[in-house]
Amino acid sequence: MAEQNRTRVLILGGGFAGVYTALTLEKYRRKIPNLEIGLVSKENYLVFQPMLPEVISGSIGIVDTITPIQRLCPHTTLYQREVESIDLANKTVTMSSGFRPHPYRLQYDHLVVALGNVTSFAGMPGLLEYALPFKYLGDALILRNRILHALAEADIEDDAELRRALLTFVVAGGGFSGVEAVAEMNDFVRSCARNFHHIQTKEIKVILLHAKELILPELPQSLARFAQQLLARRGVEIRLSTRLAGATAESALLTSGEKIPCKTLVSTVPSAPNPVIAALPCKKEHDRIVANEFLEVPGYSGLWAAGDCAWIIDHEIGEPCPPTAQHAIRQARRLAKNLAATLTNDLREPFHFKELGKLAALGHRSAVAEVFNFKLSGLLAWFLWRGIYLMKLPSLERKIRVAMDWTLDVLLPPDIVQLRTERAPGFGREHFEAGEIIFRQGDCGDRLYIIIDGEVVILRSDATGPERVLARLKAGECFGEMALVADSLRMATAKTASTANLLTVDRDGFQALFRHLPPLRGLVQQWVKERLEQDALAPEAVKTEELGRGAPAA
Amino acid sequence: MAEQNRTRVLILGGGFAGVYTALTLEKYRRKIPNLEIGLVSKENYLVFQPMLPEVISGSIGIVDTITPIQRLCPHTTLYQREVESIDLANKTVTMSSGFRPHPYRLQYDHLVVALGNVTSFAGMPGLLEYALPFKYLGDALILRNRILHALAEADIEDDAELRRALLTFVVAGGGFSGVEAVAEMNDFVRSCARNFHHIQTKEIKVILLHAKELILPELPQSLARFAQQLLARRGVEIRLSTRLAGATAESALLTSGEKIPCKTLVSTVPSAPNPVIAALPCKKEHDRIVANEFLEVPGYSGLWAAGDCAWIIDHEIGEPCPPTAQHAIRQARRLAKNLAATLTNDLREPFHFKELGKLAALGHRSAVAEVFNFKLSGLLAWFLWRGIYLMKLPSLERKIRVAMDWTLDVLLPPDIVQLRTERAPGFGREHFEAGEIIFRQGDCGDRLYIIIDGEVVILRSDATGPERVLARLKAGECFGEMALVADSLRMATAKTASTANLLTVDRDGFQALFRHLPPLRGLVQQWVKERLEQDALAPEAVKTEELGRGAPAA
Repeated sequence: MAEQNRTRVLILGGGFAGVYTALTLEKYRRKIPNLEIGLVSKENYLVFQPMLPEVISGSIGIVDTITPIQRLCPHTTLYQREVESIDLANKTVTMSSGFRPHPYRLQYDHLVVALGNVTSFAGMPGLLEYALPFKYLGDALILRNRILHALAEADIEDDAELRRALLTFVVAGGGFSGVEAVAEMNDFVRSCARNFHHIQTKEIKVILLHAKELILPELPQSLARFAQQLLARRGVEIRLSTRLAGATAESALLTSGEKIPCKTLVSTVPSAPNPVIAALPCKKEHDRIVANEFLEVPGYSGLWAAGDCAWIIDHEIGEPCPPTAQHAIRQARRLAKNLAATLTNDLREPFHFKELGKLAALGHRSAVAEVFNFKLSGLLAWFLWRGIYLMKLPSLERKIRVAMDWTLDVLLPPDIVQLRTERAPGFGREHFEAGEIIFRQGDCGDRLYIIIDGEVVILRSDATGPERVLARLKAGECFGEMALVADSLRMATAKTASTANLLTVDRDGFQALFRHLPPLRGLVQQWVKERLEQDALAPEAVKTEELGRGAPAA
Repeated sequence: MAEQNRTRVLILGGGFAGVYTALTLEKYRRKIPNLEIGLVSKENYLVFQPMLPEVISGSIGIVDTITPIQRLCPHTTLYQREVESIDLANKTVTMSSGFRPHPYRLQYDHLVVALGNVTSFAGMPGLLEYALPFKYLGDALILRNRILHALAEADIEDDAELRRALLTFVVAGGGFSGVEAVAEMNDFVRSCARNFHHIQTKEIKVILLHAKELILPELPQSLARFAQQLLARRGVEIRLSTRLAGATAESALLTSGEKIPCKTLVSTVPSAPNPVIAALPCKKEHDRIVANEFLEVPGYSGLWAAGDCAWIIDHEIGEPCPPTAQHAIRQARRLAKNLAATLTNDLREPFHFKELGKLAALGHRSAVAEVFNFKLSGLLAWFLWRGIYLMKLPSLERKIRVAMDWTLDVLLPPDIVQLRTERAPGFGREHFEAGEIIFRQGDCGDRLYIIIDGEVVILRSDATGPERVLARLKAGECFGEMALVADSLRMATAKTASTANLLTVDRDGFQALFRHLPPLRGLVQQWVKERLEQDALAPEAVKTEELGRGAPAA
């Protein structure tokens, strides 16, 4: 991409806006002979979001909701990398490295920024650790596996309290994606439960949390009310005027202070600007890049923006476009045409688009729809939903596959296969509220804990006598290493004395470090020694096994 | 499971042997009123191995080769856990913990051990780190993603050498699974390459390594020779009398000392006994549990064994059964009947089974088969292959889905979607031969290295002058932390002076530890300080950036 006579258009983002820009631009290849189109996307496929909830239940095959970008845009070079930074002055984009850790840079003449936004749980304690987002294909798969795992565990669990938590499924956010997700989840959980013969349908709780008085604020009230009643009838417990505040491994925390014990929590609410966009110097509104009516970013030559990351005023309505797929596609097409017009010195046109309608699927052959100002609900709306989205699904091949999936789905029971992929040994994060148990005496020692913030007490109960406090630990101290070093069960209980955030290192990771890094081994052995000396001075000497030992803060 | 009048049968293993034992035993529920059947399996599905290679190319939908165990055995309680140990004296099995880290134990009256064997790369350096096994569904998915990732990277790579390695795909082992895998891979890579417009088909190399003179030793020579010629004609390079010795990130190493630069290496060869079985005190042959002709393990009341982990002499032929699915299924059925007979005081029968035939699919509508002593090859054998395996696929639902997949596959192009799941930050292992580059000056600093064994030199080249050795590091020392601490590019090159095994901690993991564990932070800061002092004494002081610094061995 260094020759003089070429025009290099680089598109950032593999969502609707990015892919449809490339797709439309490809049509001008004849007219603009030296046009080179590049697209940077982390994944090599476009996700068709409206069908994502059906991946949970498996009524659409896992890969059938997504379309390979190379198939859609055969004349575009796909860079399957992450965008790391944009240098507007030098017209360069830096992206993540591939098989080898080389920095990778690309020069451009025109840049189309269509990076969308990212899920962010910042400011809500515990959500990063325990809430499942619902935006990408991977999210739908993870959620599906979590549901099946929770059911499998509930099926063999004796502890009534844990069993209840395993069978409680909470979705936060009653907008489009939350409602569609809860509807599919509810159907899926209830039909799967039949395969677990110790679970009764009445034990299952599926809860939707919504901050306002009525779900689906995007739709007219009558349709929203219909949807609300329908979900309730199907067994979804809808809790209105209720906000999620945070989460722990055991519960969803509400702003009211109430806790809902659950092991599956989906949050569809928070989205934040992509950090690459946050770092750009151009003008922004609500964290979105301000583009003019031609989809250009004023003040930067060759810079364009579209989709959820762009702030675009519809020139006929005079209002900013909402972040929907319909708008992203229309913007992308206009953008590509205007970009081509710029290169061929033709006339450009301002962006305008009237939304065609809104649809939400409610599972089980029902939906609500508002199309061309008509309101529909129930089976008819569901047929409309399927018809419209099947039409809109890019590529004929995918249309055939999804149509086939839907046909089989009517005939065959839902799939309950749990498709896990191996996790590499590693690190994790955990969040606890005050007074919660981190682990109990007698549990398996499966990880080391490092306190990021908060306070933890280590307690031991002997056969006779009450619980004794062995240690109080603070930020920068760690505990739980003894069970790993000695390969024994936990010999003490760890409990939070305040809200606490912990960093964990799992058994395999800890043992590899301990074995191969002598300085660290020295450090751990010193903690253990100090701890034992301390215990020897204590009025009642305790045994030398697992003590939930804290390191002296350095 | 504590009441007196119940008969608790616990089956370990979710492969053909385990699932078919449960399946057959369920038929005796009426006859044996208080029969309780439990099955412990890590996954909640049975993999139909013969169809696994087709998952690579996507011609069978990802989940359609697997069948949920709960569906197959509706009256069996599934424990979706890993077996950790068996206590024969106390008739107890301990398994891994679920959502909470409790140890989990089950009592049994009869135990059926059907744990199969595990993949093991022990003794072959670098295979654990770089070779992809091919046994489970996850393996097929990972392989598929690797192929697509390598193609995507080759498509945008300028370095000719790296490009060649990215486009070289090596399979080690010319038995059934290796041949079926290489055939599918070859078809898939070549048809996908059309979607990457900078890759030409002639650049692609697919290599099969086989230790003997002729592939497919399980089949008659004439069929094996046919298969060999067919694969060669399709572009597979078959290297006979060639053994894999190990691997690095850059190459497959052969016993001859030759290196084949590649980024995708599949090894179908090594299997090892399950460690749980290795720990059992009962008599073994070739690491397999010796069972008698009734599938009982002599000397232990209520202990049974079947499948790949069992050593069973066919009582008519007088020979041990080979570890195939056909035998596992037949043994399981016999075992279940004999177990039921034991409980009802009926007559038991010895095990005998004559293998029906052998089939190997060669991709692209061809196969080789030997059925009832008839030999077949080409299209007819392929039809036979599909017919027989479709018939054998458990559950009608799956039969319909696979038949549908096969129909669509004829009509539609292969799917090139790359289904990645997020990797948690974590640890890794790497293997290098002597004189190999670990990272280069100017690379991105993406991980910390700890030397498990071997020697590493750190080199720096300035704009003028030759490369200088900055340090020589040994086991227990680490390097590469400066680029992580300073968030800069590598300021030196790391190279192995001998064969070396390294433990790595990725950027996110390292930074979390460094930030939240002050004692470790102190340690790292001390290394950095010592390094800088050392440099100040050196004849030519180097700058204070990334030095690939080693810790003093403690």
